[in-house]
Amino acid sequence: MSRVREEVRRAILSCLEEGSTDRLRQCLKDLHPADIAEVLPDISLGQQVKVLRVMEPDRAAQVVFELDREKLPTLMECLGLQRTADILSAMFTDDAADLLGDLPGDLRQKLLGLMEAHEARDVKELLTYGEETAGGIMTTEYVAIQKDITAGQAIEVLRENAPDAETVYYVYVVDDQNHLVGVLSLRELILAAPNMCIEDIMRRKVISVNVRTDQEEVARLVAKYDFLAVPVVSDAGELLGIVTVDDVLDVIEREATEDMMRMAATIDSEGEDPDASPVKRALRRLPWLVGLLFGELVAGHVIEGFSEILQHLTALAFFMTAIAGGTGNAATQSLAVVVRGIATGEVDPGQILKVIWKEAQVGMWVGLVCGLVVGSFAFVWQGSPSLGLVVGGALAVSITVSTILGSFVPVIINRIGVDPALASGPFITTLMDVSSMFIYFTLATLILIR
Amino acid sequence: MSRVREEVRRAILSCLEEGSTDRLRQCLKDLHPADIAEVLPDISLGQQVKVLRVMEPDRAAQVVFELDREKLPTLMECLGLQRTADILSAMFTDDAADLLGDLPGDLRQKLLGLMEAHEARDVKELLTYGEETAGGIMTTEYVAIQKDITAGQAIEVLRENAPDAETVYYVYVVDDQNHLVGVLSLRELILAAPNMCIEDIMRRKVISVNVRTDQEEVARLVAKYDFLAVPVVSDAGELLGIVTVDDVLDVIEREATEDMMRMAATIDSEGEDPDASPVKRALRRLPWLVGLLFGELVAGHVIEGFSEILQHLTALAFFMTAIAGGTGNAATQSLAVVVRGIATGEVDPGQILKVIWKEAQVGMWVGLVCGLVVGSFAFVWQGSPSLGLVVGGALAVSITVSTILGSFVPVIINRIGVDPALASGPFITTLMDVSSMFIYFTLATLILIR
Repeated sequence: MSRVREEVRRAILSCLEEGSTDRLRQCLKDLHPADIAEVLPDISLGQQVKVLRVMEPDRAAQVVFELDREKLPTLMECLGLQRTADILSAMFTDDAADLLGDLPGDLRQKLLGLMEAHEARDVKELLTYGEETAGGIMTTEYVAIQKDITAGQAIEVLRENAPDAETVYYVYVVDDQNHLVGVLSLRELILAAPNMCIEDIMRRKVISVNVRTDQEEVARLVAKYDFLAVPVVSDAGELLGIVTVDDVLDVIEREATEDMMRMAATIDSEGEDPDASPVKRALRRLPWLVGLLFGELVAGHVIEGFSEILQHLTALAFFMTAIAGGTGNAATQSLAVVVRGIATGEVDPGQILKVIWKEAQVGMWVGLVCGLVVGSFAFVWQGSPSLGLVVGGALAVSITVSTILGSFVPVIINRIGVDPALASGPFITTLMDVSSMFIYFTLATLILIR
Repeated sequence: MSRVREEVRRAILSCLEEGSTDRLRQCLKDLHPADIAEVLPDISLGQQVKVLRVMEPDRAAQVVFELDREKLPTLMECLGLQRTADILSAMFTDDAADLLGDLPGDLRQKLLGLMEAHEARDVKELLTYGEETAGGIMTTEYVAIQKDITAGQAIEVLRENAPDAETVYYVYVVDDQNHLVGVLSLRELILAAPNMCIEDIMRRKVISVNVRTDQEEVARLVAKYDFLAVPVVSDAGELLGIVTVDDVLDVIEREATEDMMRMAATIDSEGEDPDASPVKRALRRLPWLVGLLFGELVAGHVIEGFSEILQHLTALAFFMTAIAGGTGNAATQSLAVVVRGIATGEVDPGQILKVIWKEAQVGMWVGLVCGLVVGSFAFVWQGSPSLGLVVGGALAVSITVSTILGSFVPVIINRIGVDPALASGPFITTLMDVSSMFIYFTLATLILIR
């Protein structure tokens, strides 16, 4: 991959240095927009503008869509707002809406004013839907035909509309009120006799999603049925747009990153920009880290409460990291299984109690075994059966509690939709550090002080 | 989703109870194979066999492909090997190879012997490629045309071959030695004048992957260029097959699950079967948990070595969980950023030193701030500037080390390809528990005992 990037960069730079617009145009024509987008951040702003001025709007659109959103406003000012608006008009409506949604409000309004009227209207409509819903990721560029025309006429409609439609691999069939009534693959249309009526060859069972369906749900549906696109309908069943598989790929990647970051308590759910400065990246990670450290200091406060017994029996300290660490690991395992299970649809968050009860059983077994192993070890190492009992008992109880918590939190979060950062692994781990220390020293006080 | 599942289950069960084969056949025809596959595990083995006998082989193939691989051998025996072989012959070759690769060797040989000769030959060839390579996930069902025919003739070829090809949305163009020389989308073919020669309308720049390319690399390529399929070629440039976007979706989901499980040290990289018994699931999680607990006991051993100073100054124990926990959290953040960055292609594992150096800088800043905050807090709480220095200093050093380790391990793993489980978050966390305790108590001995 990085070899391609290096070659593309060198090719563009050499054309820019030569200064011939024709040579640059030819060079850019031979490159894939995705490759150009990848190297654009490596060249100067002035050079970026030259590249985007020379490219045809529809290819420039593909490049612009891939660029870092934070740097776009500056680039757009340099490029000129009218040229930017032309590029946006050439973009697929869903991409244009996605991009405009990330821009500052006044810039967005200016650009919408300069765009082609019908493109601007479609984009404005898409902007009204929630960003994480089917409406937010759908495009309005699809091919729909009336049910009472023939296959031959349908192919004619396609020839006229295809260059504008994001995907023509499915052809949707609607009635006069624009209700979705059937679907045909392009392949079926080609294979049909030209004089057959669409109504007789279309499939009537169309799987569609409501415009307000969550994007993760849409992604699961597309993955389950191996669709290339899925139609989006209003409450009344009118066809509003389609979600294509490339957007679904993006959703799945983004959600996986989000889950991973959540597991690791990095505030930024979109991952980190590897090119950002170390200080900037450190600043993004610090709030959670420092917050969690204060959580750990609460654990320290709990330990302070038991300082007398600790002074009396220093050996208790030897097992503190084992109890805190083992408890944290058990919670993380449970969390990962449930979070990933919800993402892939294998765990049904609708059945909270069933999920938690199952995980609790797993936790009890895991806790029992770990408690037995480490408790016996503590007994042999320190030659004290009662210390073994304290260590083993505390570990067994803490692990059971933490496994339940590890399954409980993500399911609840998913159900009630509060700040997902709460489901983060380190948050639960820190909570368990406090409670496991409390369980450990309470048990020690009960059993060892007699 | 679960409402659909319930409806489908009830529909199938009521037809099975009625006993009429015709009614069952009609009922199954109206359902999507993906939906049938979802409910099949809910009904008895005998009922499953009835369903698969009544369905047409190509639809039954879609159902069988989705079923749990561990339970397939039993189902196949009940269904009869010839019927199973017919279903496999109707399956896309990549799916059939994938499924047969998971079966016991003798069963696989028997089934290959009973399958249609040319299907069996294609599947056997696919089985020779590594499971995680382009060859392992590609299908041989694609449409290729000669470069010297016309657009009209090409559409005729399509009409004849389309029902067999997994995707006809791209038409690949080859020369007489089957070298890949161009590509056309179905849309471009339809829009072209029928008498034009393919060679004049095809795109000559074809992005393809080598048959041995890693599947993650293939997935990144398809996602980057928004492809519906990518052609797979031999070293000599001969067209061998295509990888379709639905298989890429599966790869991305599987890799995301794998990364998540790795973060959580659950041995099973494929996630857990939520329907497995609690004891079975506990047994899968225990080896890592117990192994890590012994790692924590090493930390306990380190602490034991410093028991004298600990007895002398019990307050040192109050900060143990903060230092161990904070260090672990910092390592997890770094690990998540790098692992996810490698998966999405944003972090280039080829530039190890650059990645680690950047992460080290982030780590130093994070360590410095956390050390300052918690050190000052320790100073104020316990009224001892030297204790504050020990706590703050130990935290700063440990966090810096753990951040470097969190970036180092996944990059190295990715580079040299050893057991990926080593990159697991808990593994690094446990390692850091041991070393942070050592750093903490060494610093305490140096500064506090004078």
